[in-house]
Amino acid sequence: MRVLGIDPGLTRCGVGVVDGSVGRPLTMVDVGVIRTSASLPVAQRLLSIEKGLTAWLEEHRPDAVAVERVFARSDSSTIMGTAQASGIAMVVAARRGLPIAMHTPSEVKAAVSGNGRATKDQVGAMVTRILRLESPPKPADAADALALAITHVWRGGAQARIDAALSAAGRNR
Amino acid sequence: MRVLGIDPGLTRCGVGVVDGSVGRPLTMVDVGVIRTSASLPVAQRLLSIEKGLTAWLEEHRPDAVAVERVFARSDSSTIMGTAQASGIAMVVAARRGLPIAMHTPSEVKAAVSGNGRATKDQVGAMVTRILRLESPPKPADAADALALAITHVWRGGAQARIDAALSAAGRNR
Repeated sequence: MRVLGIDPGLTRCGVGVVDGSVGRPLTMVDVGVIRTSASLPVAQRLLSIEKGLTAWLEEHRPDAVAVERVFARSDSSTIMGTAQASGIAMVVAARRGLPIAMHTPSEVKAAVSGNGRATKDQVGAMVTRILRLESPPKPADAADALALAITHVWRGGAQARIDAALSAAGRNR
Repeated sequence: MRVLGIDPGLTRCGVGVVDGSVGRPLTMVDVGVIRTSASLPVAQRLLSIEKGLTAWLEEHRPDAVAVERVFARSDSSTIMGTAQASGIAMVVAARRGLPIAMHTPSEVKAAVSGNGRATKDQVGAMVTRILRLESPPKPADAADALALAITHVWRGGAQARIDAALSAAGRNR
């Protein structure tokens, strides 16, 4: 399956595309960051993010989209812009009928590094190893987007295995 | 000028259209609420809001859109959904090249009632009087959307008068 991971943000929106399935090496297809200028009105910035994400979806045609879940308890001053960008990401994917999963930062950290409190550097290092890259993707938003996509392949795969096992158990009854 | 006011929300998104100019009676063109079910995934709900707002823009062709500004300091549990809905409202308007203004709740309360700390009931009563309605629009989200549109006509008018005065002063130099 091909997954587009999106780390939403108004200034830098990380995007990463990963191909793979559970138990096989994953492949990075593309990675990048959609940037918008802080000197533009918020509406224009959100519109740029919408256009950028649409272009990524059209170019890579993912089977699913994984978006980082944003929490209100974060006391960052950028939280409103992040929430708005995540809303745009969800709508762009939903408009195409794509499955959308939300993963929390700790779920992503735990999935790629085994530690829900891993640092940015640790996540970057694990993404580099998992995707067999030469160096960690920069900026961190790009690495986070790939980590989201990896998490989604692995969690999706786990869920698929559970469903298959339940189905097999059903057949054996 | 015709203004579409939007009081963003995931469960209830208030929308109100007002025609008018400063110094003349304002007219309500339409008012309503776009509702989405809490049982749907957030992405689907945001997509419904996008479709609903698009329909309002297409039907009423406003000259400008006024959206309530959302603050992170609100400790409401619905703040993330509200921020996401406001992002959708901004993008839908920006896509059409419409001017978008953000007004804070206290700016709106002060504009329609003269008191930045007016209650919901007071705002509803003033909207009813300003637009010469028979009764306050319900729910409060609908009244708030009209209050936003009224605020925008009045503030926009004030700004236009200032611009005209500055321009006239420039000509007289």
